[in-house]
Amino acid sequence: MAQPDGAHQSEAIGRRARAASRHLAAAGTRAKDAALAAMADALGSQAKTILAANAADASDATKAGLSAAMIDRLTLSPEGIEKMAQQVREIADLRDPVGEIIEGYVRPNGLRIERVRVPIGVILVIYESRPNVTSDVAALCLKSGNAVILRGGKESLRTNLAIHRAIADALRSQGLPADAVQMVESPDRNLLAALLREDRSIDLVVPRGGEGLIRTVAEQSRIPVIKHYKGVCHVYVDDLADLAMAAEICFNAKVQRPGVCNAMETMLVHKNVAARFLPRICKRLVKAGVELRGCERTRAVWPDAKPAAEEDWYAEYLDLILAVRVVDDIEQAIEHIAQYGSNHTDAIVSEDVRRIQQFVRDVDSSSVMVNTSTRFSDGGEYGLGAEVGISTDKLHARGPMGLRDLTTYKWIVTGSGQLRA
Amino acid sequence: MAQPDGAHQSEAIGRRARAASRHLAAAGTRAKDAALAAMADALGSQAKTILAANAADASDATKAGLSAAMIDRLTLSPEGIEKMAQQVREIADLRDPVGEIIEGYVRPNGLRIERVRVPIGVILVIYESRPNVTSDVAALCLKSGNAVILRGGKESLRTNLAIHRAIADALRSQGLPADAVQMVESPDRNLLAALLREDRSIDLVVPRGGEGLIRTVAEQSRIPVIKHYKGVCHVYVDDLADLAMAAEICFNAKVQRPGVCNAMETMLVHKNVAARFLPRICKRLVKAGVELRGCERTRAVWPDAKPAAEEDWYAEYLDLILAVRVVDDIEQAIEHIAQYGSNHTDAIVSEDVRRIQQFVRDVDSSSVMVNTSTRFSDGGEYGLGAEVGISTDKLHARGPMGLRDLTTYKWIVTGSGQLRA
Repeated sequence: MAQPDGAHQSEAIGRRARAASRHLAAAGTRAKDAALAAMADALGSQAKTILAANAADASDATKAGLSAAMIDRLTLSPEGIEKMAQQVREIADLRDPVGEIIEGYVRPNGLRIERVRVPIGVILVIYESRPNVTSDVAALCLKSGNAVILRGGKESLRTNLAIHRAIADALRSQGLPADAVQMVESPDRNLLAALLREDRSIDLVVPRGGEGLIRTVAEQSRIPVIKHYKGVCHVYVDDLADLAMAAEICFNAKVQRPGVCNAMETMLVHKNVAARFLPRICKRLVKAGVELRGCERTRAVWPDAKPAAEEDWYAEYLDLILAVRVVDDIEQAIEHIAQYGSNHTDAIVSEDVRRIQQFVRDVDSSSVMVNTSTRFSDGGEYGLGAEVGISTDKLHARGPMGLRDLTTYKWIVTGSGQLRA
Repeated sequence: MAQPDGAHQSEAIGRRARAASRHLAAAGTRAKDAALAAMADALGSQAKTILAANAADASDATKAGLSAAMIDRLTLSPEGIEKMAQQVREIADLRDPVGEIIEGYVRPNGLRIERVRVPIGVILVIYESRPNVTSDVAALCLKSGNAVILRGGKESLRTNLAIHRAIADALRSQGLPADAVQMVESPDRNLLAALLREDRSIDLVVPRGGEGLIRTVAEQSRIPVIKHYKGVCHVYVDDLADLAMAAEICFNAKVQRPGVCNAMETMLVHKNVAARFLPRICKRLVKAGVELRGCERTRAVWPDAKPAAEEDWYAEYLDLILAVRVVDDIEQAIEHIAQYGSNHTDAIVSEDVRRIQQFVRDVDSSSVMVNTSTRFSDGGEYGLGAEVGISTDKLHARGPMGLRDLTTYKWIVTGSGQLRA
């Protein structure tokens, strides 16, 4: 096979990252935390340069006719930079996961077996417009002893490069290799494709952004990818639910912040309580500006709902729209979630312990919520500190990914001359 | 893109496996263990049929001119079948990993957060000639609540089908779906390629066999793969080693069973002890039939060694051949392992605690041995019970993979009406 364009450059990037990762794996917590403190300081002292670069990016984005939402996501304020620095300081305050003895025991022949947490090595993070991801991800990877290759969106390239300069200065000032955090400057897709084939030097790829970006990365990558495509989150209201609680939970899950992946997109209601529950919750949702799209039985109770089409059950609206279905029983609710869900976060509201057990066991989602809002599916809410992302994959990390998920382990076997017979 | 051949068939296989996996995830330990007992019994009661199928496979293999080693690996004896049944019984006796609460805590707002171990779902295992893998893997997957799709080598297809029939009978007799263990009958490579793209229904691929098979699978798969390509294991003899112990360890690591992945392939010796250590160990190794291939400094001390070429440092001989290099210091030993090693298992022999710490920290292998033989790198020796395989990957599972590595977790969040503010 001919080498794709960019293979030479990607190999050099990977090789430098691997070399830096070996330094980082040997660096102690104190050295890493000092570099994080220097990083936070450098973001502060270089704020003017970063803001100037950002203004240039924003101006180009406006000229290029990018959407207001996109320009909003990429625009930084002085407070935004202060928040980025603060987040880096908070990551420094988290406990270093590296070196934790996950388990340890002595075998009958006297061999001491330990499983010890170590950095993964080299991580490639691909993301879109938000520039705070640059400092967040760099800090998380540094804290966990990993070298990182950052590949941001081209519309925020100047901003990212300015942030990266501050980070590199901070690393060098503390005697750590600047290659610990590399920024891919070229927007060339061939280079990205070549990086995704560097499975000898890169250990993990984390794509963050829209479903299209993530699917492209997953399709092209030879390196393991951790990801989530979307969050089609359900709340199932059982006939044995406290209906007042159910209404509060459904309202919170849909309305509190509809544009995020852990917001409810479909509400499933047991047929025995549909006539009692639907009018009160629908009235409240409509008042909050929610558009309802219901199944036939939903519309029999709340005729103002639009008829739901098959694609509504698959939809991640990220908006004030809700699909509503009346189900025969908990089995049909579980079946619906298996067929249309995204394995992200699904909730049951019920007072019945057997129903709860059945739902928790049979719903194959990274987070299953009982009598609470899907909106709590979040690294911060779980107490993980900073969050790398959310995984709906099955391997390595599932659900909100904390610092721990940027590590692996090695087996250390200590003997005194034991031989295998 | 046009659908590749076999896509229709692979989709049906994946869909049936996914449905079976949902049954298994809900099955209790008792039901799974009863099915494993029935499986062991069925292997015994259907031994004659299995042996007849195996005789036909072996006869065809002989006619086809397969190597003696290959025919040996595929040939079953009545004792071999009894051993397979015994292994299934031992797997039944292991503790069920499913349902373990890995961690659990209560947040300040009263939410109870639990991380609970659950099956991965559907696993595709691709392997070569040894038929005992069929029952081992089926039993491991069943115990951990996973549906499995088995794809063995075509030279043992009749044997595998006979074993599979016994397994399917056992599953049905205990009310579990026969689709929990499916056997791919067709040797069609297009079907295999199509299966490797079924990332909606298959969660994990484990290839077991030669490096060529594993590379092909890793190259083609859209599904996460856990694997090891090879084991180029090193023993580094430090100048602060107990040289008598070092000699025993090196001899054991090379000679006790040279044809396996955790045998030593390269011996690294500190220059300060080369003149004292090499003559005694080389003499003993040569007497045991080992061919030595040394660097120049090795040959200065032991001139009978053949000169080692660059490719010898990369070689997994799986044979009575050993590459030997004299190194300046521990740093050069670590550098050598980083450059030529396979991240499988590497050992240090030293009495010095700082050298040991340095080696353990800086050698990036799935298992690092201190003052003991690389041959202990093994699930059984680590006390894991049955072994799924060995992983030199970084994600999810590293080193010997036990039953635990066939599971993932889900987050279960239990509240009493909490809402996100």
